[in-house]
Amino acid sequence: MDNGLHAPCTMSGEDAPAQQQNAVDQKQETKPAEEPKNESPKTESAPAAAADTAATPAAAAEKVPEEETFSYRALVLTGYGGYDKVKLQVKKGKPTLKAGEVLVRVKACGLNFADLMARQGLYDRLPSPPVTPGMECAGVVEAVGEEVTDRKVGDKVMVLNRFGLWQEVVVAPANHTFLIPEGMSFEQAAALPVNYITAYMMLFDFGNLRPNQSVLVHAAAGGVGIAATQLCKTVTDVAVFGTASASKHETISEGGVTHPIDYRTKDYVEEVRKISPKGLDIILDPLGGSDTHKAYNLLKPMGKLITYGAANMLAGQKKNLIAVAKNWYHQFSIHTLSLIQGNKSVCGFHLGYLDGETELITQAMNAILDLYKEGKIKPRIDSTWHFEQVGDAMRKMQERNNIGKVILTTEPMPEEEKKEEPKKEDKKEEKKKDDKKKDDKKKDDAKKEEKKDDKKKEEAKKEEKKEEEKKEEVKKEEK
Amino acid sequence: MDNGLHAPCTMSGEDAPAQQQNAVDQKQETKPAEEPKNESPKTESAPAAAADTAATPAAAAEKVPEEETFSYRALVLTGYGGYDKVKLQVKKGKPTLKAGEVLVRVKACGLNFADLMARQGLYDRLPSPPVTPGMECAGVVEAVGEEVTDRKVGDKVMVLNRFGLWQEVVVAPANHTFLIPEGMSFEQAAALPVNYITAYMMLFDFGNLRPNQSVLVHAAAGGVGIAATQLCKTVTDVAVFGTASASKHETISEGGVTHPIDYRTKDYVEEVRKISPKGLDIILDPLGGSDTHKAYNLLKPMGKLITYGAANMLAGQKKNLIAVAKNWYHQFSIHTLSLIQGNKSVCGFHLGYLDGETELITQAMNAILDLYKEGKIKPRIDSTWHFEQVGDAMRKMQERNNIGKVILTTEPMPEEEKKEEPKKEDKKEEKKKDDKKKDDKKKDDAKKEEKKDDKKKEEAKKEEKKEEEKKEEVKKEEK
Repeated sequence: MDNGLHAPCTMSGEDAPAQQQNAVDQKQETKPAEEPKNESPKTESAPAAAADTAATPAAAAEKVPEEETFSYRALVLTGYGGYDKVKLQVKKGKPTLKAGEVLVRVKACGLNFADLMARQGLYDRLPSPPVTPGMECAGVVEAVGEEVTDRKVGDKVMVLNRFGLWQEVVVAPANHTFLIPEGMSFEQAAALPVNYITAYMMLFDFGNLRPNQSVLVHAAAGGVGIAATQLCKTVTDVAVFGTASASKHETISEGGVTHPIDYRTKDYVEEVRKISPKGLDIILDPLGGSDTHKAYNLLKPMGKLITYGAANMLAGQKKNLIAVAKNWYHQFSIHTLSLIQGNKSVCGFHLGYLDGETELITQAMNAILDLYKEGKIKPRIDSTWHFEQVGDAMRKMQERNNIGKVILTTEPMPEEEKKEEPKKEDKKEEKKKDDKKKDDKKKDDAKKEEKKDDKKKEEAKKEEKKEEEKKEEVKKEEK
Repeated sequence: MDNGLHAPCTMSGEDAPAQQQNAVDQKQETKPAEEPKNESPKTESAPAAAADTAATPAAAAEKVPEEETFSYRALVLTGYGGYDKVKLQVKKGKPTLKAGEVLVRVKACGLNFADLMARQGLYDRLPSPPVTPGMECAGVVEAVGEEVTDRKVGDKVMVLNRFGLWQEVVVAPANHTFLIPEGMSFEQAAALPVNYITAYMMLFDFGNLRPNQSVLVHAAAGGVGIAATQLCKTVTDVAVFGTASASKHETISEGGVTHPIDYRTKDYVEEVRKISPKGLDIILDPLGGSDTHKAYNLLKPMGKLITYGAANMLAGQKKNLIAVAKNWYHQFSIHTLSLIQGNKSVCGFHLGYLDGETELITQAMNAILDLYKEGKIKPRIDSTWHFEQVGDAMRKMQERNNIGKVILTTEPMPEEEKKEEPKKEDKKEEKKKDDKKKDDKKKDDAKKEEKKDDKKKEEAKKEEKKEEEKKEEVKKEEK
């Protein structure tokens, strides 16, 4: 997957006008530590801003070529930290296509845990800020480069890349794109690649899942969790143990989880042993740390533990050094002698490190799309957010308030919503505190962790206040 | 597999005659450290020896019941150490059958690396000496216990058990036996269970071997090596890299190894990289220590390293503390973060630790027998040895002079061979030194490691002398 995406605002040639060179330089000067000054959160007025700098007498008189006027909105991670570090900016200049590449007009993007890790500086596959995150999106092919034979303008595609897809326009190698099947929405298409390829390769490559086996899926209501559950159900008589907070049990049971476990009130190891005393055949572990140890001990002979993340490292919206250190301290390390005596397997998976394995990924994707066409799997969308709301979207996912995929849409946000949104979000928080048991609307279904201790609650409140202050600062800047 | 085999000389009841109780007691008194005095290497005269103790006036006058006269030869590990620690003894008293068990008259037994480890005290699945080793054998069902419905007297079966099968008569649960298919000899049947189940479960359960993949098989001329090669060839276009000394290359190539590598003169990692620069999909590692590290680094993304032994610990015929320590020091230990970033899998396998997993093993065995019936696999016998020659048989395997399986037969050894054998073996050694390039006969095909340094050669000579002396001692005892 490497070499995939070029800096999307590469100039079309050496003849690029000076004012655009400037624009690019300005963007590149943006350093993580400082607030970028040319940041442009006002998406509607962005072209006007471009026109400002382009307003030299010569250019103004004639028709400006598309390469110069072309601009698009992009989310940019400006530095490591909280939700506010991902900013909406405008990039200018039409990207050029190399041989084998396509230009895609993006409609929807998927959020992944790696994006949350990346924002905190915990994911080394994302280059240093400023950089556009995003590993998957869906849209329409708008241009094709030379030597591209299997994609044409107008094709609806999903795109998979190491980073750089949270923007309105992306350039990617054609073999990083996959045709969207008939009847699949852009949101569903953006929800599919990362979660389903991850779940598929873990279960069917490392896991070698077969009939009558048992699988533990942590965070069974998350993106990978739902994908894994659906994929398990494509194999005869597979028992799926899924952890999630109690409020999500009905949904995940409907989705195929045979044994939902509320990890917040019960010891999941005990719960599994009650039903399956010998342990499990496959355990998918996105948590890391001490949970990996538990998983290892919970394996049957010939069992496979597949670890694919370190979600336990994520505590709070900024990098929590204690959580990181704790995770490292408890990091699972295994001797071969123990593996031999236990007849066990320990595997590590992360799609972000499968650079260049286009063939493996295409194989998995084709199998997944076949299952979709057969009606056996279907991406579940939790919620869709505008680019302007990326912070809220990330928060929803990080606080585990989602059931299914959190999606970003490139559709511009109506002006009225934009103004109201921060207040609405605050009201939501208040509402939850006042009336936890009330049935919330789709966007309001998040519940606070009941087991959080008081200290954490206080920290969270402080963070919220900071967030508010920062949001107000942004507003001031906008004015 | 546990609870499988009872002490085969359990008395048939409390009425057991005193002289037999004595015989049992005598055997049980045998301690590892001292030479057992009731040892009975003269197989032909063994019943006579039993008659000696049984010659009380009462017993001599009437017909002695079968339970009392029943005796059978057994190999017994009398203590940890060199090849001479496995002695041929006579056990008396007909074993009783519990429900679900069968009694098998053994024709042939397989030798495995675990038996060599066990002799040195390096295998914890064998109880303390005195104990009969042996994980697999083939023979004929001579009696069936209650509740046995799927085996009958006269059935030809192979038996798989944690230990205790190197004797003429064994008792095992019926579900530890497998019917020998039409046309398969007892030697082939005794060569099949451990090696083929091991290779099968590693390749098709942990390894998830699929078409077009690449596999590294160490010791490709060994029992597991040949089984693994044959099983790889049942899958389309699998590239098999096999290490073996040069003299074995022709044979293993004919057997299906695509790329034979002489690990004694070449760096196998380099050789693999020349042909497969990206590395390999599956590596079977029986060596342990630093070779496990090499294997890990040689894996492709989504590659699986399956470690199933620590042959590197075996240096010389007795426990070599330096080799053991070195192996421990270099023992492979892996962090999950490395697994995640590499998208790799590390698995441990050992059939001896799959206690009680009858279902898993039966599944694998049925699949293997189907492949045999289809003509896709065929156990290869290196050589067959009498019980009296078990030391030589073990030496052949430990010195890696075999191509295929080393088998023990229960067939009694002709008197003349017995007397000549030690001398013949010595002559063989001399002959090899004099004329290495001459085509040897089947039993003489072993070649000394060309890369052994002088020191090792001297040690080996000393060991040989010791062996000679010991053998002469045994002869004296026999007289």
